[in-house]
Amino acid sequence: MFSELFHLELDLPTKHRIYPVILCGGSGTRLWPVSRRSYPKQFVPFTDDESLFQMTLRRLESGFEAPILLTGNDFRFTVAEQAQQTGIDQATILIEPVARNTAPAILAAALLISETDPDGIMVVLPSDHMHHDVSKFHAALSNGIAAAAEGHVVTFGITPTRPETGFGYIELAKAPSEVAQDFVRFVEKPDEERAREMLSSGRFLWNSGSFCFSAKTMIAAFETHCPEMVPVVRRALDDRVSDLDFTRLASVYEESQDISFDYAIMEQISDGKVVPMASGWNDLGSWRTIWQESRPDEAGVARKGHAWAIDCQETLLRSDDPDTAMVGIGLRNIVAVATGDAVLVADMDRSQEVRDAVALLRDGGFKQAEEFAKCYRPWGWYETLALGERFQVKRIMVKPGAKLSLQSHVHRAEHWVVVSGAARVTVDDDVKLLGENQSTYIPLGAVHRLENPGKVDLHLIEVQSGAYLGEDDIVRYEDIYART
Amino acid sequence: MFSELFHLELDLPTKHRIYPVILCGGSGTRLWPVSRRSYPKQFVPFTDDESLFQMTLRRLESGFEAPILLTGNDFRFTVAEQAQQTGIDQATILIEPVARNTAPAILAAALLISETDPDGIMVVLPSDHMHHDVSKFHAALSNGIAAAAEGHVVTFGITPTRPETGFGYIELAKAPSEVAQDFVRFVEKPDEERAREMLSSGRFLWNSGSFCFSAKTMIAAFETHCPEMVPVVRRALDDRVSDLDFTRLASVYEESQDISFDYAIMEQISDGKVVPMASGWNDLGSWRTIWQESRPDEAGVARKGHAWAIDCQETLLRSDDPDTAMVGIGLRNIVAVATGDAVLVADMDRSQEVRDAVALLRDGGFKQAEEFAKCYRPWGWYETLALGERFQVKRIMVKPGAKLSLQSHVHRAEHWVVVSGAARVTVDDDVKLLGENQSTYIPLGAVHRLENPGKVDLHLIEVQSGAYLGEDDIVRYEDIYART
Repeated sequence: MFSELFHLELDLPTKHRIYPVILCGGSGTRLWPVSRRSYPKQFVPFTDDESLFQMTLRRLESGFEAPILLTGNDFRFTVAEQAQQTGIDQATILIEPVARNTAPAILAAALLISETDPDGIMVVLPSDHMHHDVSKFHAALSNGIAAAAEGHVVTFGITPTRPETGFGYIELAKAPSEVAQDFVRFVEKPDEERAREMLSSGRFLWNSGSFCFSAKTMIAAFETHCPEMVPVVRRALDDRVSDLDFTRLASVYEESQDISFDYAIMEQISDGKVVPMASGWNDLGSWRTIWQESRPDEAGVARKGHAWAIDCQETLLRSDDPDTAMVGIGLRNIVAVATGDAVLVADMDRSQEVRDAVALLRDGGFKQAEEFAKCYRPWGWYETLALGERFQVKRIMVKPGAKLSLQSHVHRAEHWVVVSGAARVTVDDDVKLLGENQSTYIPLGAVHRLENPGKVDLHLIEVQSGAYLGEDDIVRYEDIYART
Repeated sequence: MFSELFHLELDLPTKHRIYPVILCGGSGTRLWPVSRRSYPKQFVPFTDDESLFQMTLRRLESGFEAPILLTGNDFRFTVAEQAQQTGIDQATILIEPVARNTAPAILAAALLISETDPDGIMVVLPSDHMHHDVSKFHAALSNGIAAAAEGHVVTFGITPTRPETGFGYIELAKAPSEVAQDFVRFVEKPDEERAREMLSSGRFLWNSGSFCFSAKTMIAAFETHCPEMVPVVRRALDDRVSDLDFTRLASVYEESQDISFDYAIMEQISDGKVVPMASGWNDLGSWRTIWQESRPDEAGVARKGHAWAIDCQETLLRSDDPDTAMVGIGLRNIVAVATGDAVLVADMDRSQEVRDAVALLRDGGFKQAEEFAKCYRPWGWYETLALGERFQVKRIMVKPGAKLSLQSHVHRAEHWVVVSGAARVTVDDDVKLLGENQSTYIPLGAVHRLENPGKVDLHLIEVQSGAYLGEDDIVRYEDIYART
């Protein structure tokens, strides 16, 4: 992988710097229950130790400037932490105050880059796609960057491998070659007959939502095709606020049109280029595509976690909870996915209707529609183990050096038992250090704080009791993560 | 229901007493994950508040002697508690030291009854069957008891409603009437063609495993057809031991043949009678039969718990865990069942292969093959909420007046936090009372005891820490349930 990237540098004009712009604000529900609004698929560990977002970053780790990461307020700590784990600590994390689709997000990144480097080339990528052949990905990227350096707006089109009805297409003027070439137009998602025609014609590519251009070229394109957006986004950028590691766009951003980059720019320009990519791309946009990526055996059965199949075919069985064992018997064309708090069982061809399932649960007031039992916080995470009348048990992990806010609760008292690591606990004026197997009591109303002063993760069990146990019963007096 | 029982009394010769003999030692796995070896289907709540075992007892609650309940050592506290909840506190709970199938169990009950009442009539029933029409059940029972009072060995045969291949059949000498009549022979489970023939002939009934005869008739039948079993079981009964509420057969019982009552007696006798029963019987022996009993809607979809169906047909969706939401999309002829720790997804017609699934999990060392997260004990229950390296969190419920054994642990210390109710805690020489939201610490090695001195259930959270956290790290000094 590094060698391809090294080639990439050699192939490019050295005077241009290249900026990865990663769009990681998406909150898809099509992979529920594994992807949820509160923690969408780009952040979920996909291989044993990496999320799709991290795999996206790693594909661009050598020869590029520090990336610009666009996201929403809810995901900022996750983006920062996962980038850091990947070894990237210079990223600019640009926070959109509200989601306004891809056009204003890409414009904001272009304006930011042009402040210091108008000739800088942006490589704009979704954070939740897969490329099996990284060397082909890099080769295509290299061709795209070369065209962008000449002032072109470039999109990357995926060489289709099946008559897919779930993607948009890009029509080419002539048969595809490896380099940037003209395209005729963008085509909406087709029906199956049309998809077959396009596949056999050899003149269509899938629209991957990946782009490349210089910052100044893109700003000019917006000024031509979407002029009313420019002053709004420029103002949001000019009035931006730094907040810890984050750069917050000003709230005027919400006045921008809510529109996709394809629609605002790509479908409007007449001189765009497309570079074909045959990189084993997969948008992982449905359970069927996940099944395809999960190495099914000769019977078509793919399994993950503690899952077993007895005489199944073309079936995905996934237990995403280490404590849940799943067995499928005699299934055909089924996807079954279990987390600790939800189970989806669907006909593989109907897996796009998962959105309806999520809506059903949300309307019923079930929190697993949108949230996970485990909640990530800047200091670590917590997970509810049991919730009963007047009591709740949580497992809490605090990262080394991390501190929860100085806080108090009106309705609940808390018991803390340290199970591993060390805790520094402040209760009113008293500060003490607790080791493994030690405990403390936080009376109702006491001003308290929990810190991990050690070098290893702190795990503790919290038993809450009281008449009301909601997360919103919290008065914050001081917070190192600027959440007061 | 009570009125039918009243009729039953009127129809019978008053000189005979009638003893329900309920076989509740079965440990079927065909309804895994809801039924497990450690807590089989007869004890699982079937309606909102009653198990099949309890429904069986309630069908026989008026006009009968106190029942004789046959079970194994593992289920004794469950049998006692569920019988008590049903208002039966005079039952004889006869414990088989090892399972030896139905023949020796029925013989032991016959010998026990004949000690005081040789003419006593035994109504022998499985503990896990369903009868929708209790009045027809009682009418058939009444006819069977009348024949038993005349010295006959009676079995109850179910009027078949479909060409079922999963049951044994009983062939009649002539077309069935309502009263006891001769039968020709017992027939093994047939193939589908044979099942159709038997159904259309109108001369076959399903074998329900339910019987009726006097104690002395049955002892005579064993002496004729299975003579070597009688002295062994008689010795096991003579040397029985009383243990709290239980009567333990002596260990010589294990020398008895391991053989079914059908095979040992019913298939051998030439003068048996059968009484047809059209009581809406269901043996609940597979997920398909559970689906039939779960009131499917017009699309054939049956749901239980937090379960939803989007365009499914002939499908059972069951969440048996209050914290798990299940959604099915586009399913046909599927059963999906989730508990907190296991998920089964099966083709409805293959649900008899659930046994293979259980074997697969057992061989893999997964405890959910045979055990539940919640473990019932004579004093209440406990449930593991989280198990990590060197720690475990349990939720514990102690019934009013109940006491855990006086015990100590070699490898673990424990924290207890009371979340509701009151606890009396002994730690070495110290005894204290804890109320809601109070906690205590049990150091490693300390001799301790937990009691509920109150009038309401005690709920507490236990946090264990130590190098080894198995249930077998326990030294018992004293136990009111005779487990030392």
